[in-house]
This record gives sequence, structure tokens and C-alpha cells, in this order.
Amino acid sequence: MESINVREKLNLIDDHWNPRIIGELNGQQVKVAKIEGEFVWHNHKNEDELFYIIKGKLIIEFRDKEVELNEGEMIIVPKGVDHKPIAEQEVWIMLFEPKNIKHTGNVEHKLTVKKFKKI
Amino acid sequence: MESINVREKLNLIDDHWNPRIIGELNGQQVKVAKIEGEFVWHNHKNEDELFYIIKGKLIIEFRDKEVELNEGEMIIVPKGVDHKPIAEQEVWIMLFEPKNIKHTGNVEHKLTVKKFKKI
Repeated sequence: MESINVREKLNLIDDHWNPRIIGELNGQQVKVAKIEGEFVWHNHKNEDELFYIIKGKLIIEFRDKEVELNEGEMIIVPKGVDHKPIAEQEVWIMLFEPKNIKHTGNVEHKLTVKKFKKI
Repeated sequence: MESINVREKLNLIDDHWNPRIIGELNGQQVKVAKIEGEFVWHNHKNEDELFYIIKGKLIIEFRDKEVELNEGEMIIVPKGVDHKPIAEQEVWIMLFEPKNIKHTGNVEHKLTVKKFKKI
């Protein structure tokens, strides 16, 4: 049991859209990622997903609206709901989601990460 | 699906050791609390628990060591591990834990919250 400094973990990352695992509990994982640009439309059939913003401004597009998230804000995207994250500039995020979630949900894409690494 | 501002939620709280639910996903809950002083030694038999520090300095005592946590830092306390949070001054925390966790684990105490409220 050690303290985990979230920004220090993010400082170790030098790529985008490649979440790293920083903790695990109750079958869920905590991940961090730097993201920039547009992600792909997708949903997670069986998993709710939490986005928490460490730095920057994230837009999440839904089919019927978009939500803006700034530092210290979070959103929970329920399972089955199509969403598309957009970061006009680099954004640092923390994610809470089940251990075996697929990165791009039901979509295979060049951004799909096959296996998440710990950091 | 709305954005949730964690500090704004904490601004609504005017008591200590009384976590409020701000989100729920995959059978887990996200809670926030203001805490000050010493909590009671306890453990959670079946639940891992994540503490994330929004503001202030939290000490968590374990039987064999203590860990200091500052803003932007987190710790995961595995199930079954005795712990005692101590906040010398007020600390704002965010918690991730299973929905049906008992506040003080295996201990009944005046600080035990019977039912967590949403905020």
C-alpha cells in the first residue's frame, strides 16, 4: 500500500490514447491517459465508464448532445451509450472502469489498445 | 449524463465523516467527504477501498506503517487490511468503493453512517 501520485504517473506518459493502469480494486481498474484529437465513436456493451479530468478540457460527444469537462470534473458514461471523446488540446484523464473493458468497445480501430500496461 | 464538479459537490457539505454519493457505476460508488480528526480503526472484509485527495493532507495509519497523502494522490486499501484515517486539518476526499460497503467496516461506532445520501 503506497501513495500514488496521479500527475507523476501522467508525467511518465509520452503518447496519446494509450491508457496505463495505475491501480486495481474490486475487479475495476484505475487508468490514466494523455489524449489529444478525436477518438472513435464507440460504446461498451457491458461496462459503465468514468472519466475524471486531471488537466485540460475534454468534450464528450453523445448522439444527442455534447458535454464539456474541465479539470476536477467527471462524467459517468453508462454501458451501451455511444460516445466520442474529443480533446482539442492535450487532456490528462483518469478512468475508472471494469478490468476487462475493451478500449474502443464494439469497434476495432487503429487506436484500439490490445493490452493495457501498468505504470 | 452530466458533468459532475467534485469541488462543487464538496462545497455543499458542512459536516465531517459523512460521505455523500456523487456517482455510481458497475456496482461501485463514487463518494466525497470532508473529514477532520481521527477516524476509528476498521477494515472492510470484502471490499477494496480507494481514497483520492482533493484538498489537504491525509494520514492513513496501518498496523505496521503510516502513509501520507496529499492533493492529487491516492491509495488503494485492500480488503481485510486494518486502517485508520487521520486528518489533522480538514481534508476533502473522493472515495471509490463497492455500493454496499459499511462505513466503519467491522466496527460499530458513533461515526458509522447507516445510509449514505446522494448529493
